[in-house]
Amino acid sequence: MKAIKVFAPATVANVSCGYDVLGFAVNAPGDEVIMQLNDSGKVTLESITGDDGRLPRDPARNTVSAVVINYLQALGVEQGISIELHKKMPFGSGLGSSAASAVAGLIGINELMGAPLSREQLLPFAMEGERLACGNAHADNVAPALIGGLVLIRSYNPLDVVKLPVPASLACALVYPHVEIQTKEARQILKTHIPLHDAVTQWGNVAGLVAGFCMNDLGLISRSMQDVVIEPVRAMLIPYFYELKEIALHQQALGFGISGSGPSVFALCTGLQTAQRVVDAISARLSEAGIQSTTFVSEINQNGPLITSMQPALD
Amino acid sequence: MKAIKVFAPATVANVSCGYDVLGFAVNAPGDEVIMQLNDSGKVTLESITGDDGRLPRDPARNTVSAVVINYLQALGVEQGISIELHKKMPFGSGLGSSAASAVAGLIGINELMGAPLSREQLLPFAMEGERLACGNAHADNVAPALIGGLVLIRSYNPLDVVKLPVPASLACALVYPHVEIQTKEARQILKTHIPLHDAVTQWGNVAGLVAGFCMNDLGLISRSMQDVVIEPVRAMLIPYFYELKEIALHQQALGFGISGSGPSVFALCTGLQTAQRVVDAISARLSEAGIQSTTFVSEINQNGPLITSMQPALD
Repeated sequence: MKAIKVFAPATVANVSCGYDVLGFAVNAPGDEVIMQLNDSGKVTLESITGDDGRLPRDPARNTVSAVVINYLQALGVEQGISIELHKKMPFGSGLGSSAASAVAGLIGINELMGAPLSREQLLPFAMEGERLACGNAHADNVAPALIGGLVLIRSYNPLDVVKLPVPASLACALVYPHVEIQTKEARQILKTHIPLHDAVTQWGNVAGLVAGFCMNDLGLISRSMQDVVIEPVRAMLIPYFYELKEIALHQQALGFGISGSGPSVFALCTGLQTAQRVVDAISARLSEAGIQSTTFVSEINQNGPLITSMQPALD
Repeated sequence: MKAIKVFAPATVANVSCGYDVLGFAVNAPGDEVIMQLNDSGKVTLESITGDDGRLPRDPARNTVSAVVINYLQALGVEQGISIELHKKMPFGSGLGSSAASAVAGLIGINELMGAPLSREQLLPFAMEGERLACGNAHADNVAPALIGGLVLIRSYNPLDVVKLPVPASLACALVYPHVEIQTKEARQILKTHIPLHDAVTQWGNVAGLVAGFCMNDLGLISRSMQDVVIEPVRAMLIPYFYELKEIALHQQALGFGISGSGPSVFALCTGLQTAQRVVDAISARLSEAGIQSTTFVSEINQNGPLITSMQPALD
């Protein structure tokens, strides 16, 4: 029977000043999903690796299978599918783990069905996966995971998603400190009202960041990566945050911030070598403090998920 | 003695969602300043036309002469200058009248002195002119008046001004309804705190607007011209605001909003013909309600002020 192997990328949501409206994809890490059609008429989760047994095994409750079930229901198709999920990235880490699973599952099933839907049409299904995983159908991870690059979620009502140009020289440094933060809690500590003055500062920086990406102006990107609204609140959840920021900027990172709702942190850099220096310096500092971390260095992912194998039957 | 004639353009600050961070210049209307060097050692205001006698005649208090005095002091030069100011635009109207006067004066004196300062270096002097005129050294009128185009004031501290690309097909419709609003009052009615949810909506739109300009995407510009923070408060100061907006959009304007703090309103349009239809329809509606208005239609000004004449002595 027809089978497919798909890689979907991790993503950095918010991107410093762009809380809830910006996100970008990286080339590593990410999730891998292997799916195979069968005659069972049911969606089954054959195996999950890399999650230490922590993700739900019930197909209706695991993101990767749940989005496939929704997709097939929407198409009015009864189709047997077996799914293997290989988590090749940490989850609960602020790196868009559930988004990567949802996107890999959706790209897989859509290809297996003959690609009746465009990537844009898959977005609402992926957002429903986010609702299942974290209670909120946000798009700032799933959209970049699905279409790649830096993505602006201009509006949710109606949904308006814009892919922005990304300077080719940009690289991303990611560090996941092994401490746990619940996304829901990270949202709950935010204030419901903010000073207009801070809001203006923030949208000036968001405007600068977007202009920097569009105009290939790395200096402007660097100057704009300042978050006066969310970071000051969430930074307290991340050990040594401001010291890590100083270390990253000292290593010539263009900017440094919290990835999604943390605890992972990211830096945008010119080139992979700088990004490597940044993650080395940060993980060394964390290690000094007795905190283990996982690091990743990659270019910005420009194209979204990758179909790494598609065959009548996978070996 | 050496003399110069300078035109400086009117400007639309805020540009819908970009409160305090965006502004653009138009080709009309604007102010004209004629300046002539002399041996008096003093800056004098020879004449002002087009203001119905309402602007201060004291050179230290009128924006155009005050910025020239500051400029000469900063350069440590004692120079006699006579100034004629021809207001060719309404003031107190939200069209950046004081900015146009300040910029025309500064470009004039700088050229007469042999252009020792760049336009960027003139910006702080123009901002001081704004402080004199309206109590606040804001830059969202003077910056576009000085360098043209659509300008982002990313930050005031330090000052960071970015000129953004403007689609060549864009035209601007301006309508000044003859009602009066004080800028200070228009600022005072704003709330000091806003819901985080609205702030996110706003910076999504600001990001979309900037991306639309940078990527020459008129549809995105149109969808992004939504202000959920300032417009709902200030619209009440402008008669029939929402009806005028509906009229503008019905005439195919891309978007419609308040120019600066009003009462002028503006629309961005594809082409001058559409802009003309918009101003005609709006002024007709105002006229029906017994409100006179002045209308302007122009392209976006790409280059800022214009030196229209420079001679050893003007005729």
